[in-house]
Amino acid sequence: MNYLASVAVLILFSSLLFAQTKPRARDLGVPFEGTPGALNSITDVKGIEVGHSTIIRGAGKLQVGEGPVRTGVTAILPRGKQSNVPVFAGWFSLNGNGEMTGTTWLEESGLLEGPVMLTNTHSVGLVRDAVIKWQLKQYSQTAQMWGLPVVAETWDGYLNDINGFHVKEQHAFDALNGAKSGAVVEGSVGGGTGMICHEFKGGIGTASRKIAENRGGYTVGVLVQANYGLRKQLRVAGVPVGEEISEGSYRAKENGSIIIVVATDAPLLSHQLKRLARRAAMGLARNGSMVGNGSGDIFIAFSTANEEAAKQTATTSLMMMTNESMNPLFDATIQATEEAIINALVAAETITGIDDHKVIALPHDRLQEVLKKYNRLGTPTRK
Amino acid sequence: MNYLASVAVLILFSSLLFAQTKPRARDLGVPFEGTPGALNSITDVKGIEVGHSTIIRGAGKLQVGEGPVRTGVTAILPRGKQSNVPVFAGWFSLNGNGEMTGTTWLEESGLLEGPVMLTNTHSVGLVRDAVIKWQLKQYSQTAQMWGLPVVAETWDGYLNDINGFHVKEQHAFDALNGAKSGAVVEGSVGGGTGMICHEFKGGIGTASRKIAENRGGYTVGVLVQANYGLRKQLRVAGVPVGEEISEGSYRAKENGSIIIVVATDAPLLSHQLKRLARRAAMGLARNGSMVGNGSGDIFIAFSTANEEAAKQTATTSLMMMTNESMNPLFDATIQATEEAIINALVAAETITGIDDHKVIALPHDRLQEVLKKYNRLGTPTRK
Amino acid sequence: MNYLASVAVLILFSSLLFAQTKPRARDLGVPFEGTPGALNSITDVKGIEVGHSTIIRGAGKLQVGEGPVRTGVTAILPRGKQSNVPVFAGWFSLNGNGEMTGTTWLEESGLLEGPVMLTNTHSVGLVRDAVIKWQLKQYSQTAQMWGLPVVAETWDGYLNDINGFHVKEQHAFDALNGAKSGAVVEGSVGGGTGMICHEFKGGIGTASRKIAENRGGYTVGVLVQANYGLRKQLRVAGVPVGEEISEGSYRAKENGSIIIVVATDAPLLSHQLKRLARRAAMGLARNGSMVGNGSGDIFIAFSTANEEAAKQTATTSLMMMTNESMNPLFDATIQATEEAIINALVAAETITGIDDHKVIALPHDRLQEVLKKYNRLGTPTRK
Amino acid sequence: MNYLASVAVLILFSSLLFAQTKPRARDLGVPFEGTPGALNSITDVKGIEVGHSTIIRGAGKLQVGEGPVRTGVTAILPRGKQSNVPVFAGWFSLNGNGEMTGTTWLEESGLLEGPVMLTNTHSVGLVRDAVIKWQLKQYSQTAQMWGLPVVAETWDGYLNDINGFHVKEQHAFDALNGAKSGAVVEGSVGGGTGMICHEFKGGIGTASRKIAENRGGYTVGVLVQANYGLRKQLRVAGVPVGEEISEGSYRAKENGSIIIVVATDAPLLSHQLKRLARRAAMGLARNGSMVGNGSGDIFIAFSTANEEAAKQTATTSLMMMTNESMNPLFDATIQATEEAIINALVAAETITGIDDHKVIALPHDRLQEVLKKYNRLGTPTRK
Repeated sequence: MNYLASVAVLILFSSLLFAQTKPRARDLGVPFEGTPGALNSITDVKGIEVGHSTIIRGAGKLQVGEGPVRTGVTAILPRGKQSNVPVFAGWFSLNGNGEMTGTTWLEESGLLEGPVMLTNTHSVGLVRDAVIKWQLKQYSQTAQMWGLPVVAETWDGYLNDINGFHVKEQHAFDALNGAKSGAVVEGSVGGGTGMICHEFKGGIGTASRKIAENRGGYTVGVLVQANYGLRKQLRVAGVPVGEEISEGSYRAKENGSIIIVVATDAPLLSHQLKRLARRAAMGLARNGSMVGNGSGDIFIAFSTANEEAAKQTATTSLMMMTNESMNPLFDATIQATEEAIINALVAAETITGIDDHKVIALPHDRLQEVLKKYNRLGTPTRK
Repeated sequence: MNYLASVAVLILFSSLLFAQTKPRARDLGVPFEGTPGALNSITDVKGIEVGHSTIIRGAGKLQVGEGPVRTGVTAILPRGKQSNVPVFAGWFSLNGNGEMTGTTWLEESGLLEGPVMLTNTHSVGLVRDAVIKWQLKQYSQTAQMWGLPVVAETWDGYLNDINGFHVKEQHAFDALNGAKSGAVVEGSVGGGTGMICHEFKGGIGTASRKIAENRGGYTVGVLVQANYGLRKQLRVAGVPVGEEISEGSYRAKENGSIIIVVATDAPLLSHQLKRLARRAAMGLARNGSMVGNGSGDIFIAFSTANEEAAKQTATTSLMMMTNESMNPLFDATIQATEEAIINALVAAETITGIDDHKVIALPHDRLQEVLKKYNRLGTPTRK
Repeated sequence: MNYLASVAVLILFSSLLFAQTKPRARDLGVPFEGTPGALNSITDVKGIEVGHSTIIRGAGKLQVGEGPVRTGVTAILPRGKQSNVPVFAGWFSLNGNGEMTGTTWLEESGLLEGPVMLTNTHSVGLVRDAVIKWQLKQYSQTAQMWGLPVVAETWDGYLNDINGFHVKEQHAFDALNGAKSGAVVEGSVGGGTGMICHEFKGGIGTASRKIAENRGGYTVGVLVQANYGLRKQLRVAGVPVGEEISEGSYRAKENGSIIIVVATDAPLLSHQLKRLARRAAMGLARNGSMVGNGSGDIFIAFSTANEEAAKQTATTSLMMMTNESMNPLFDATIQATEEAIINALVAAETITGIDDHKVIALPHDRLQEVLKKYNRLGTPTRK
Repeated sequence: MNYLASVAVLILFSSLLFAQTKPRARDLGVPFEGTPGALNSITDVKGIEVGHSTIIRGAGKLQVGEGPVRTGVTAILPRGKQSNVPVFAGWFSLNGNGEMTGTTWLEESGLLEGPVMLTNTHSVGLVRDAVIKWQLKQYSQTAQMWGLPVVAETWDGYLNDINGFHVKEQHAFDALNGAKSGAVVEGSVGGGTGMICHEFKGGIGTASRKIAENRGGYTVGVLVQANYGLRKQLRVAGVPVGEEISEGSYRAKENGSIIIVVATDAPLLSHQLKRLARRAAMGLARNGSMVGNGSGDIFIAFSTANEEAAKQTATTSLMMMTNESMNPLFDATIQATEEAIINALVAAETITGIDDHKVIALPHDRLQEVLKKYNRLGTPTRK
């Protein structure tokens, strides 16, 4: 476990380093609509903390239970570690070949009562129960009598010994305890470690949009765990990038998934957040997804406003954005989703997993070439 | 049309007279749980107005287009005729062999933006467009650019020349313009004119519950258009009344429907009102329904609180009952639904319709006898 | 009425003429994915008949009730006029600021039991009841005891005297009786007469895709009534066309809607057709929609296979495509939706409506210029 | 672990003994409608196997992690252990304060691809992942690349050290491996070990109905894990039993849940099975539930017909019951649900758990007395 922990720390640390030096999609000149927040990240929504626990171990031929291991856990805490005050939330399943636990109560109550956790398909249960344990300890005075955690997944079995069940409770605790505000590490980290997107290395990506002050000045942040798509389907800024870059593609059949987490500080109620969750589909579509049968394309949206929503009193007072005022939030959700996915692709690096399966990173120079070919390359600010 | 109008007025007038003299279910000693409001009616929720337009004309053999006619329209206006301010609302389809227009926007927006109208199956369209016309006139300064009215139905073709399309715009206008607070006429009136319930004459019924002051003091009112059920299925206060009273039964096969409208002044949001709508099913179940394939069992719930919900501003402030405080409202919804249906049966009178189809009223004395046999008869206060 | 009818006939006739001479989107060199059916139309799905009734009358200043009139009705009959055998169907509301009647029973039963009708928002009710009347006559031997027609709408009040309620029963009958197989007239016809899309003249569009024989050889056809979008949002084949062509734009605020009808001969069950309906959103997204608050984006999908689905026997035998085989149908739905919308734009012609509101057609030459600028113009086959 | 295993075996063994000697509800003279199958059990549906793993250990004061332990796991295998062929399925959440994993894919695909597992709230995750492990081993040749198991729960923290997480993988394996056809042990076993219903000891109950041969001769079986309700709410056969038997009641506030599993051999598709799942609510209502805010009332229905539904071919042939023929299945579902709950109450025995919390069994003699008082006691066949 110590070894594991050190590897995780090492990975986190080096990822942090990379995070400060690696270019993101718009740095390369990919054109996007809208105005991002300060970090262009889900953490631009005040209070949100994100943590990753990454497990990379071993190489070579798959021995179930031994590895190689390319997986992890990502935690998104709507009000940070210090608060277990619920947030209004809504969800939407665009194609349900996946799992997001806790949605039945979320739908009923309109509330998300803890973190959103992301991991691999076969570790959802472990992470779910681990969240309950963590909550019992972390909020010992205020923990609820029962917990119904929200844990979602995508499948990393092409790179990871998924049937070896390498995620342990401690990894979930690490992701939760390590969660923090500020820039979010993207790419092959946390739950995204073994993920693949349009046959490039995928994983975690994030982006945000800031609404004009005269429309409320709210922020919408998106975080994705991107693991979907055939190469040929990839469109970037409307350009058929996937048809132009065939190198490293290996799949005949769509099999992936994407989890999209949308956060905002706009005072939206649960039925309005469901509307936001549905807009995530529109952002995903822009990048070329056809939402294959094997895809678990499940989206959740929450609002950090209305801390009073779950008070222990009979009634409580709320703020609500009126429906007529929501359009800028819809734009923001679509735009931030579109960019978060491309950010995941741009951040991820070439990786080799079980049975020497190799998945290449999206080559930045080739991306720029193709955008240029279609007259869609902006001015790169970094290389 | 003048003739029609006079008949309608006559019916309304005589119904009003009856309303003051006719016993209701609890007057007969039927035991119910909970505490009703002052009128034991949906109009106990302050601001609600209800209007009926009843069309009874002709007798004898069916001549499509000529009659006999036994149908009508009922209007429920959440904030009365004077206000077109939307209310938060939710809906639930227990079995969808029926129509309730306007639910797509209700689900999306969380709001009900006009009256709930009840009529027969084949007049839903006419009544829907008529509501738009009425709104354009009634709220000429504030009417919305487009209307998506909520109109629901049950089928009265056993008694009524339904394919003669006898409901006209004026009937919808009459129901709307005649809507008022105070006691609601029950039984064979308005949309309920030709309806049949457990093979007794059915129609409109209503009831209400008042929550304890220390639980908020809120009121829940229910109005039903009851048109479902085989005789043998009828249970009253848990007693197998339908098995004991076989007289006048005529059906081999379940074919009916019920629309249930739940209203409250408790400050509930749309997702919470959907929870109330779902509880209507539990009240219906107590009376023996098995929700047949041919049934349109569609329920809507709204709250008259939060007049600010649809303000023309970017944000608005609301009150919300917390989920933890909702149980008394659940009890109230179930209890008022149970009683409203029995009230419809108790109020309705024997009627003869097309082709001399005769449907008898639930005989009050027989009901009392059966309740007594099963030791469930309370003390009647009226006969 | 005679005058009206002659106008309608004239319009239909001239539209038919145009249909044979007007270029469609791919004729102009717009690149699309996939292989269309013979007509590139929803009517490539065998058995489907489509009819339009178009009402164009008057000009100049709006006088409610007098006109000008720019509206109509479109009828899509899954098995043609001669058959009232239901089809399996599913639906999806991407944003429910609109109406599609009949969906409650469609959801419950899994079946669509008649035509899909398209008209303007304020004529939904009239068309709904008219369908019942038409069915009673058309299928006098086999009509059901009650009808729950599917009628959807978009709002044409910028061009049309919508509050004049100019659609009459006869228009619905005309659309139904005039329905036929073969090429479908596109643009400003039928329900699409007064519709506007991305601030260009919109309306009816259609397209189809043929699945590879070794994947089943099935056809997917799409028909849209397109009435959504701001100019700047329009993307064609990924190219930001709306940002490049500003001429004739007039709106500050998104207010439109789109109804999408997906048809296939693949043997899909209702829950699978709902999956197809959800994919329509992905096609819509490609063209730039952000699904505004005011949008009624409601989609329905049906399959003409399984004529035995609603037999009058206790059980029936069916064919079902397995979930694993559905990906080509998902692709086809997205692709045909994308193209049908552009076809609507390409077919529609500049129109002037109430108060001299003028909405221009998408200029074909400008579209080609912009596509060329972004290196996305294919080889035009017609001008 | 050996000790645990022996306890479990002992419990299972003694429960089996009891099963042969203990009376069930109808043996006591409780009147029910309809005709049960041979065993009056979910296992009357051919192929279904049920297994329990029961964990009872320790007594006295709660020491988290040490016990006392009153919990377990129940497994329902639609086609028995030997087959992992999916079944068509549907689900319904009447009140979603609970968890049923795997429903997102069930809703999307229409299929249930493994067992339904029941356990306590805080062990759902462990059991979920354990099912994947068990499937990988049990179906090593045919296991899917990823698993999305269905695991549901109710909360046993009044009797059980639920935060001690005493359910281990082996318990899930034991429930699965021990599953068998034949009579099902009821009461405080498996997932039902620590459950409480109407403030009596609750747990597992089952019942079935056989449809008349001329309506298809199908069987509907129901199994419940009953953990809901205040005492005063309990109605048995319509009789207010809960108001009459106050002994041993201890609660001020509704806090429970019920999971209802409906099985049939009738050839129903997924959307039809959802209709069955919804009818479970009507059976529950008959026994007095008001579906409290804290309730996880989640229902699943599946059909063992159509073994071809998930074939590895492009299309497959199916049988489907027509909607018009489903009424007897609706009756059966309601009736079997009603009886299964009462069977759980009748079978369970008085138990003492953490902190010496004592929950009494429903006293059979008192039940009979009350039924007699209300003239509803049939002829008991056993004592």
